[in-house]
Amino acid sequence: MDKITIGVVTTSDRASKGIYEDISGKAIMDTFNEYLRNDTEYLYRCIPDEQNLIEETLIELSRSCDLIVTTGGTGPAPRDVTTEATEAVCQKLLPGFGEQMRAVSLQYVPTAILSRQTAGICNGTLIINLPGKPKSIRECLDAVFPAVPYCIDLIGGGYMEVNESVIKVFRPKAK
Amino acid sequence: MDKITIGVVTTSDRASKGIYEDISGKAIMDTFNEYLRNDTEYLYRCIPDEQNLIEETLIELSRSCDLIVTTGGTGPAPRDVTTEATEAVCQKLLPGFGEQMRAVSLQYVPTAILSRQTAGICNGTLIINLPGKPKSIRECLDAVFPAVPYCIDLIGGGYMEVNESVIKVFRPKAK
Amino acid sequence: MDKITIGVVTTSDRASKGIYEDISGKAIMDTFNEYLRNDTEYLYRCIPDEQNLIEETLIELSRSCDLIVTTGGTGPAPRDVTTEATEAVCQKLLPGFGEQMRAVSLQYVPTAILSRQTAGICNGTLIINLPGKPKSIRECLDAVFPAVPYCIDLIGGGYMEVNESVIKVFRPKAK
Repeated sequence: MDKITIGVVTTSDRASKGIYEDISGKAIMDTFNEYLRNDTEYLYRCIPDEQNLIEETLIELSRSCDLIVTTGGTGPAPRDVTTEATEAVCQKLLPGFGEQMRAVSLQYVPTAILSRQTAGICNGTLIINLPGKPKSIRECLDAVFPAVPYCIDLIGGGYMEVNESVIKVFRPKAK
Repeated sequence: MDKITIGVVTTSDRASKGIYEDISGKAIMDTFNEYLRNDTEYLYRCIPDEQNLIEETLIELSRSCDLIVTTGGTGPAPRDVTTEATEAVCQKLLPGFGEQMRAVSLQYVPTAILSRQTAGICNGTLIINLPGKPKSIRECLDAVFPAVPYCIDLIGGGYMEVNESVIKVFRPKAK
Repeated sequence: MDKITIGVVTTSDRASKGIYEDISGKAIMDTFNEYLRNDTEYLYRCIPDEQNLIEETLIELSRSCDLIVTTGGTGPAPRDVTTEATEAVCQKLLPGFGEQMRAVSLQYVPTAILSRQTAGICNGTLIINLPGKPKSIRECLDAVFPAVPYCIDLIGGGYMEVNESVIKVFRPKAK
C-alpha cells in the first residue's frame, strides 16, 4: 500500500502566535486518520495570514505531498488571503470543489456564500481550501473526499485506500 | 443605530436616456426599506451600459457606501458589461453569491444559467450584481441578504438591523 | 427557418490518432438531430489535447458557427486543456453552465466536482464544454440546452426551433 503524505496548512494570525490552540489542523488530521488505511505522514504548518508566506508554504509542500489541505483565510475580511494564495500557485483550478462545499455549508448557515474556498492543482499536487471551524471542516471533507482519490490518481499521486465503513470513494472505470 | 448608505446602480442604455422608467432601481430601494430598521440613505445612479462609466461609478460610491447593488447588465449580450466592471474594481470576488442567485433563479427559469451575476469587495464595500427584472431582484435578494449584514461587519461597514418579520439574517458567533 | 451551423470539437490524443473511435462527437450530433427542427450543418473536428490547436480551432469555427460544443479535456489531468483554451478565446464567460452541468453530473457520480467545464462567448458564438463520455454528454445537454436558443438570440446567431416532444426551451419575453 502506498505511503501518503498530506500537507496541513492552518492560516491564522492568532493560532500562529500561540494566542489560541489550532484545533482545526488537528481535526483535519483526525479525519484523514479515520478515512485512510494507508500509512500517512502529515506535514503540518501553522502560519500567519500573509499571502506571500502562504504561497511559499504551498509550493514547498507541493514538492513532497500527495494532497495539501488548508484551513482558514477564505472569508471576505481583508486578512483572509488563503484563496488568493491558492489561486496564485495553482496551474489549474477546480471550481467544483468550492461550489459543492458552499452548497453543503449552505444547508447549515446562510453565511456559507461568503466563503471563497477553492481547490486546484499546484505542481501535480491537489490543494483544497477548507473552512476554519472543525464542524464545517468535517461537513466539507465528507462531501468532497469521495472524489479526491481518483483526482490524485489522475495527477500522479499515491494510491489512497479508504476505510469503507467511514467513507465511500468513487473511481470511474477507464474508457 | 448606525446610519446605512446604500448605492443603487441601474445600468441600462434605455432607462438612462429616459426611454422607459427604471422600475428596478425603485424595487431595490423598496425592498431595503422593508428589510432594514436603520436610517438608510440611497445614492442612486441610472447610467448607460458603458464599462468605464460603471467602474467609475462603483469606485465613487465605494467611498461612502456600506453596500452597493447593481441591476442589469449581467447577461451574455455584447452591451452587458456590469459583471466585467464589477470584477475590474473588486479586490476580492465572492463567487458564492452568483452561484446561489443562479440556483434560486433556476427554480423559475432555465435561462438563469445565462446570468453572470457576481459579488465582491471594492475598497471595503460589498458590491452585489442583481438581475434586471423586479421579480427576479426580490427572489435573489431574499436568498442572499441573510448573509449580507455579517459580511458588512467583517469588512468594517455599518451595523445593519433588520425587521425580523420580513427577513432573518445570520451572524455566526466569534470563535 | 434559419439554417444552423454547429461546431463539434472532440479533443482527445487517442481518438485524433485513430486509436479508438470518437463516439462522443457522434453522440453530440445525434442529440442535436433529435433536438432541432432546423436544417443543421456540423463542422466536426477531432484534434489532440494541444491548447494552441484547440484555441485556433475554436476561433476558426467561431467565424461560421451559431454554436460550438467541445467534448473531453475538462478534467484535472495535465493533458486536459480544453477549459484553458475555451477561457483564452472567450470575451465573456458564463459560469452558470459549468455550475449546472456539475450539479447534474453530481447526481450520478461524486467525481463530477473534478470537471472544469465552462461556457463562454467567442466572437459572438456560444462555446459549451461537454464531458467526454456519451452518457454524461446527454445528461449535461438535456440540462443546459433549454437556455441555449435564447442565449444565441441575444448574441445574434440563427433562430433555433426545437422538437418540443424531445426538449423544451425557454425564451423570456422582451421587457
